[in-house]
Amino acid sequence: MTVVLKLGGSVVTEKERRETVDDERLADLAMEVGAADVSDLVVVHGAGSFGHPHAAEHGVSTSDGTTDPQAVRDIAGTMERLNTAVVGALAEAGVPAVPVHPFSAGHRDAAADLHLPTAHVAAMLDEGFVPVMHGDILAHAGKGATILSGDELVTHLAAGLDADRLGLCSTVPGVLDQSGEVVPTIESYDDVAAALGGSDATDVTGGMAAKVRALLDAESSAFVFGPANLEAFLAGEDAGTRIEG
Amino acid sequence: MTVVLKLGGSVVTEKERRETVDDERLADLAMEVGAADVSDLVVVHGAGSFGHPHAAEHGVSTSDGTTDPQAVRDIAGTMERLNTAVVGALAEAGVPAVPVHPFSAGHRDAAADLHLPTAHVAAMLDEGFVPVMHGDILAHAGKGATILSGDELVTHLAAGLDADRLGLCSTVPGVLDQSGEVVPTIESYDDVAAALGGSDATDVTGGMAAKVRALLDAESSAFVFGPANLEAFLAGEDAGTRIEG
Repeated sequence: MTVVLKLGGSVVTEKERRETVDDERLADLAMEVGAADVSDLVVVHGAGSFGHPHAAEHGVSTSDGTTDPQAVRDIAGTMERLNTAVVGALAEAGVPAVPVHPFSAGHRDAAADLHLPTAHVAAMLDEGFVPVMHGDILAHAGKGATILSGDELVTHLAAGLDADRLGLCSTVPGVLDQSGEVVPTIESYDDVAAALGGSDATDVTGGMAAKVRALLDAESSAFVFGPANLEAFLAGEDAGTRIEG
Repeated sequence: MTVVLKLGGSVVTEKERRETVDDERLADLAMEVGAADVSDLVVVHGAGSFGHPHAAEHGVSTSDGTTDPQAVRDIAGTMERLNTAVVGALAEAGVPAVPVHPFSAGHRDAAADLHLPTAHVAAMLDEGFVPVMHGDILAHAGKGATILSGDELVTHLAAGLDADRLGLCSTVPGVLDQSGEVVPTIESYDDVAAALGGSDATDVTGGMAAKVRALLDAESSAFVFGPANLEAFLAGEDAGTRIEG
C-alpha cells in the first residue's frame, strides 16, 4: 500500500506569524503518523508562513517567474528550514523520515510541463524510509524559476509512484457544501460546482476548487480531511471528503 | 562553455574542527568565482569536517550502507548546512548561486550504478543560475543508503552536462610526482603509477589515485590544482595538473 499524505501549510505552520511552526499540532500529527501501519508513505507539506511571504515579496507564483537568484535562495531556503522542522517532528515520533527538496530534483520545460523524476523516491520507499517533500520553487525554462505548489506535487507523486491512496490534511474537515456541511463523496466537479464556483470559474488562489479538479484527475483514491481525521485516513478508512473521478 | 568546478572539502572547511567552515578561504575563492567570466558553471563542494565525521560514526561509506534514518538525516543535514554556507559565500561575491542536494534527486540501483538526472541542472544553467551541489548520502537499492563522493558527482555531472572543463580545486597544487613536484600532464595512469601506487593498487581512501583514474575516464579536459590556481582555471588556462585520457 503506497500512500501520499499532504500536511497543509496552514496545518503545520502558524499562518499569521512569519516562519513559525505550529509545534504542538505538528507533534500531534507526527504521533499519528508514527502510530500508523503504512508500508510505503510519502509525506508532503505546504509552505504556510514560510514560503508564501517570500514568494509574494519576490512576485513569484506558479506562472510568474523570477530570474533573481536571491528569490530562489530565499524560497528554497525557507522551505528547507520548514522541512527540517517537519522531518524532525516525524523523527521524534519514530517515523523514518528523510528530507527531499523538489528544487534539487525537478524543473519545468518551456511548455510549463513539470519534470520531477520519482525513481529515487521509490528507492527510498523500498529501503524503508519515509521521504518528506514540500512545495518549492523550480527552474522553469524561459521564465527563470516558478513555484511548485504542494498540491501539484502530491498529484504528480501519486501518479509517478502509482499510489493507492492520496490524502490532503487541511484545516477544514473536508470539501464543504453551501450550508457548510462536509460533502462525503465527489465523483464529478458538478457535484460541488454550486458550492465552489461554476465549472468555468477561475481559481487563481489555488484553493479548494483547484484541489478538487486535480484530485478528480488523479488515479488514486483521494481524500480531503481535517487533522481530526488523519488517524482514520492512515488506517485505510474513508476520511472527510472522498474524491474519485 | 560549461565548467564543473569542485571545491574540495579540505579547501572549504577546517578539517580538524568539526562542522567548521574555513570562512576566509571560502570568501577568497568565492571572490574569484564571482570575478570569472564563465557562461555555465556548476560548483560542487566536498564534505570536509561536516559529512565525514557523521559518515564514520554511522559506519557508512560509498559501499557500506545504512538503513538507519538518523544516519541519513545526520549526513544529509550536515551537508545542507555546509551547502548553505558555500551558497551564501558565493552569493556574497555576486555569484547567482542556488542550492542543489543530490540526496533529493538521485539513488543507486542494486548494481550500485548511480542514477542522478541532470536535466534540472541544465535548466538552471540555461536560466542563468549557478547550481551548487555536494557530496551526499543516497538511497541505494538493497543497502539502505550509501555515500556519493564529491569526486564521483563531478565526473557524473561533467558527463551528463557535456562539460568542456572540469576542475578539482584541492589543498595540493596538483598531482605530485615522487619528488613532490607537480606533474604537468597525465595521459595514462602509467604516467603517475610510480608516485600514486601501481595500477593494481587499491585506493580505499578515495585519494589522488582514484581521482586520477576517474578523470582519465572523463570526456572533459580535467585539472587538479590548488587555490592559487583557481583564477587561471576559471580563465580557461591550464592549471596544476592537466589530466586527459
